[in-house]
Amino acid sequence: MTNGADALAQVLAQNGVDTCFANPGTTEMHMVQALTGRHGIKNHLCLFEGVASGAADGYARMARRPAATLLHLGPGLANALANLHNARKASTPVLNLVGEHALDHIAHNAPLTSDIATLAAPMSKSVVTLTETSQIAAQTRQILTDMQTGTPGVGTLIVPNDVAWGQAAPGNVPPVDLPPLALPDDRTVEAAAKALKSDGAMLILGHPFITARMQELAYAICTATGATLMGEAATARTARGAGLPNLPRIPFQIDAALAHLKDVRQAVLAGAKAPVAFFAYPERPSALLPPACTETTLCTADDNLEGALEALAEAVGAKPVKADPGQLPAAPGEQAIDAEILGAAVANALPEGAIVIDESVTNGLYLYANGGTSPVAHDWINNRGGSIGYSMPVAIGAAVACPDRPVIVVTGDGSASYTPQSLWTMARSGLNITVVVLANRRYKILANEMSKIGAGEPDEGSDPLLSLDQPPIDWSALSKGYGVPATRVETGAALMQQIRRAVAEPGPSLIEAVM
Amino acid sequence: MTNGADALAQVLAQNGVDTCFANPGTTEMHMVQALTGRHGIKNHLCLFEGVASGAADGYARMARRPAATLLHLGPGLANALANLHNARKASTPVLNLVGEHALDHIAHNAPLTSDIATLAAPMSKSVVTLTETSQIAAQTRQILTDMQTGTPGVGTLIVPNDVAWGQAAPGNVPPVDLPPLALPDDRTVEAAAKALKSDGAMLILGHPFITARMQELAYAICTATGATLMGEAATARTARGAGLPNLPRIPFQIDAALAHLKDVRQAVLAGAKAPVAFFAYPERPSALLPPACTETTLCTADDNLEGALEALAEAVGAKPVKADPGQLPAAPGEQAIDAEILGAAVANALPEGAIVIDESVTNGLYLYANGGTSPVAHDWINNRGGSIGYSMPVAIGAAVACPDRPVIVVTGDGSASYTPQSLWTMARSGLNITVVVLANRRYKILANEMSKIGAGEPDEGSDPLLSLDQPPIDWSALSKGYGVPATRVETGAALMQQIRRAVAEPGPSLIEAVM
Repeated sequence: MTNGADALAQVLAQNGVDTCFANPGTTEMHMVQALTGRHGIKNHLCLFEGVASGAADGYARMARRPAATLLHLGPGLANALANLHNARKASTPVLNLVGEHALDHIAHNAPLTSDIATLAAPMSKSVVTLTETSQIAAQTRQILTDMQTGTPGVGTLIVPNDVAWGQAAPGNVPPVDLPPLALPDDRTVEAAAKALKSDGAMLILGHPFITARMQELAYAICTATGATLMGEAATARTARGAGLPNLPRIPFQIDAALAHLKDVRQAVLAGAKAPVAFFAYPERPSALLPPACTETTLCTADDNLEGALEALAEAVGAKPVKADPGQLPAAPGEQAIDAEILGAAVANALPEGAIVIDESVTNGLYLYANGGTSPVAHDWINNRGGSIGYSMPVAIGAAVACPDRPVIVVTGDGSASYTPQSLWTMARSGLNITVVVLANRRYKILANEMSKIGAGEPDEGSDPLLSLDQPPIDWSALSKGYGVPATRVETGAALMQQIRRAVAEPGPSLIEAVM
Repeated sequence: MTNGADALAQVLAQNGVDTCFANPGTTEMHMVQALTGRHGIKNHLCLFEGVASGAADGYARMARRPAATLLHLGPGLANALANLHNARKASTPVLNLVGEHALDHIAHNAPLTSDIATLAAPMSKSVVTLTETSQIAAQTRQILTDMQTGTPGVGTLIVPNDVAWGQAAPGNVPPVDLPPLALPDDRTVEAAAKALKSDGAMLILGHPFITARMQELAYAICTATGATLMGEAATARTARGAGLPNLPRIPFQIDAALAHLKDVRQAVLAGAKAPVAFFAYPERPSALLPPACTETTLCTADDNLEGALEALAEAVGAKPVKADPGQLPAAPGEQAIDAEILGAAVANALPEGAIVIDESVTNGLYLYANGGTSPVAHDWINNRGGSIGYSMPVAIGAAVACPDRPVIVVTGDGSASYTPQSLWTMARSGLNITVVVLANRRYKILANEMSKIGAGEPDEGSDPLLSLDQPPIDWSALSKGYGVPATRVETGAALMQQIRRAVAEPGPSLIEAVM
């Protein structure tokens, strides 16, 4: 016999959940012992739960299997929710282990009692509250199955303390067995092929995880049919560089997005949804494709996109073709850093195998496009959920999943201010992460958006709610406070040089890029 | 005509909601303009939503009227929830203004779309989604009424962007009119009087807001009847010092709590609930009063506690009596700082009118008891919800509500790590807050709790999930990074001297007390 927490840990380990990002409390003490015990699970302590949930997201994006979070009751889960929102939108499997009071303690309405299942529901694909120790193994296996079947998602397992401390049989259950992904039928493939050969055709590639092979196939299909290739605005992860086609993406900015899509008459959706505006704007549509456009779905994000593209390539007689990703921009000199210089600096500094976590917000215009011109193979991670403060936490998980690959975060200073505690876990776990903080000391995107959404221009009253300059955040001091060495740069050349240095050194570094 | 956001701001200002703690996004731009416009509402920018919600909680605890938060969609609300949990448990009126996509945009499931109302429900007393501009004034008045009637609580007003930008009539509605609080009937008062005159009687005083008058009455009642006076484990705010009775409180630690209460045969609940264990522990009861104890409720926290105590005092023939709050401890010398020295240093350093925000966790044993011996009148704020990371945000709100009173935060380093961004708002808004961070570099409470809850002792595997020493957080660097000057102290004398200095200087200061 063992206890419930131990049986739970055993089922996790048997199913490849061997990594946990933790911020525990009293109700999770049995789980702490079990997760750090004999099952070989690796644990990373986080000072804030949003770091843990973002890290689990980043881990799954790279490892393609779930990590766990360990969270303390409803408030601990609440702090994790914003980054779980991003995981949900990225179709990332994240398993939350949330401690709960012992079952008969809940009715006493102690200080920390809250409705955990309701809190979890909006961001979770599956929520299970364990009710007896004997069911732990089966219920844990079930949630791992549910959260990974079809579109992967967030699973929240609520573990009452008495279930964790109760006596249990060892957690031997058959491993999770996921069904194969579906392929489109011939008629669907033919319809997509026909649409792509029409005038004004666009292939929109939009699976959360865009592999190199998907892009090669999509590029060949578009070359054979004359269709335009377009990516969704954000993906959970895209393979890039080393001659891949430098997949363009639908712009965030509403008028730019509409301009990109205004002539599309046939849209073939390959893993993508029909594109929608990030926000609603007065006098602008929510659906971005023109009303006259016909939409054809090759397959959804739940299906076997690579297989579907293989079938489509065959149907249109596509031949392998070398893409032109565009010219790597010149290495920047002593100019001040702006969006263009940032893009050039990062593209030139990218090391082989880099994982870039992009939270550059208003300064990302050149960053993504230039990244695709890099001669080295790398992965690009983006935010499909829009909840900011995701990049440093996600970087932790990516670095844990891929300890031999350098991770580079590019984040606005406003964004980085949601989860600065991430820096401490980077230092504690000795992760090779380079954090570039773009210090423009402003919620610049909001200053841009205010007039676009019809709310006028920032004025003397409202500007103080958009500016971060009073006092300026000293990112170098902050970073050192959390044990991460930091430098400050003001030119493109210095930024490029510092990224190269930081990537080459073990452990984390922060670079404050003054803009 | 005006727009919906402006009508909303007008109703807020008319009802005394003149302070907002904000972290806005695109969907809140019209509200930013309205809240910073002609209605005289004062706004404080926060880098993280948990700071905003905690600040609104602290504001209401001191001002006894609600402040607003301004939050960006579901993820912005999610980040605010942990401190809203504490506000809910403290019966604090907090009004969340949460932006939402324009109503017809929601069905398009854009990246930031989520189920805001469900997220809000567990921590809110009232959740209202505005549905048309013409109803804004009435619906805003209604939520202000609902959240302040009976037990005050959190109101969440979800504001779709098109409702905010739509044309509206000016928001003229009658001011909110709250019903008077109820008084107990004579029979209830007599029953309480009789119980207090019995053997083994205890008066448990537990309103969220304990005034000086309540304590004087309770002390006189207990003196007249021979009953023991006891406070709940935590209150939202308690008046203390200057000869008040130094209200004891039910200990957090389960065995100490049971020992305190084991001989109680008659418990009279004055605004309090029957005490329950903070957590469930194997072989320990959840209800802390002995099974043989009879409970008599004088009144609940929803009622007029001061009036109820007046009636009870009259019923038992209580006379005003001078309390003995105990001896102010000697000022500490050059000793290292431990819980006892901390208590002595703070008690001796307390300035007139101080507001103490207590998140001292394992180091609070002497802090509260010694604070009550202070010769100066002050207020003590505690956490009734147990979600940590509350003290620095609450301090912001308290300081905004009471700009002429010094605010002193005493917080564990683990706790302070949830919402460090608070420091920036303290600097930005120029608030006289002294933050004492107790740097023991450990989740010491968890190391204590692990064995108590039957999970064994921390071992080589589990200890790394309880320790914060690798790397040590440099609180001075962190604080300076956010624009708050900082010092580090290692002795009781230095701690006391630095608190005195920091309180006397305008603006915030941080003191890292190495333990």
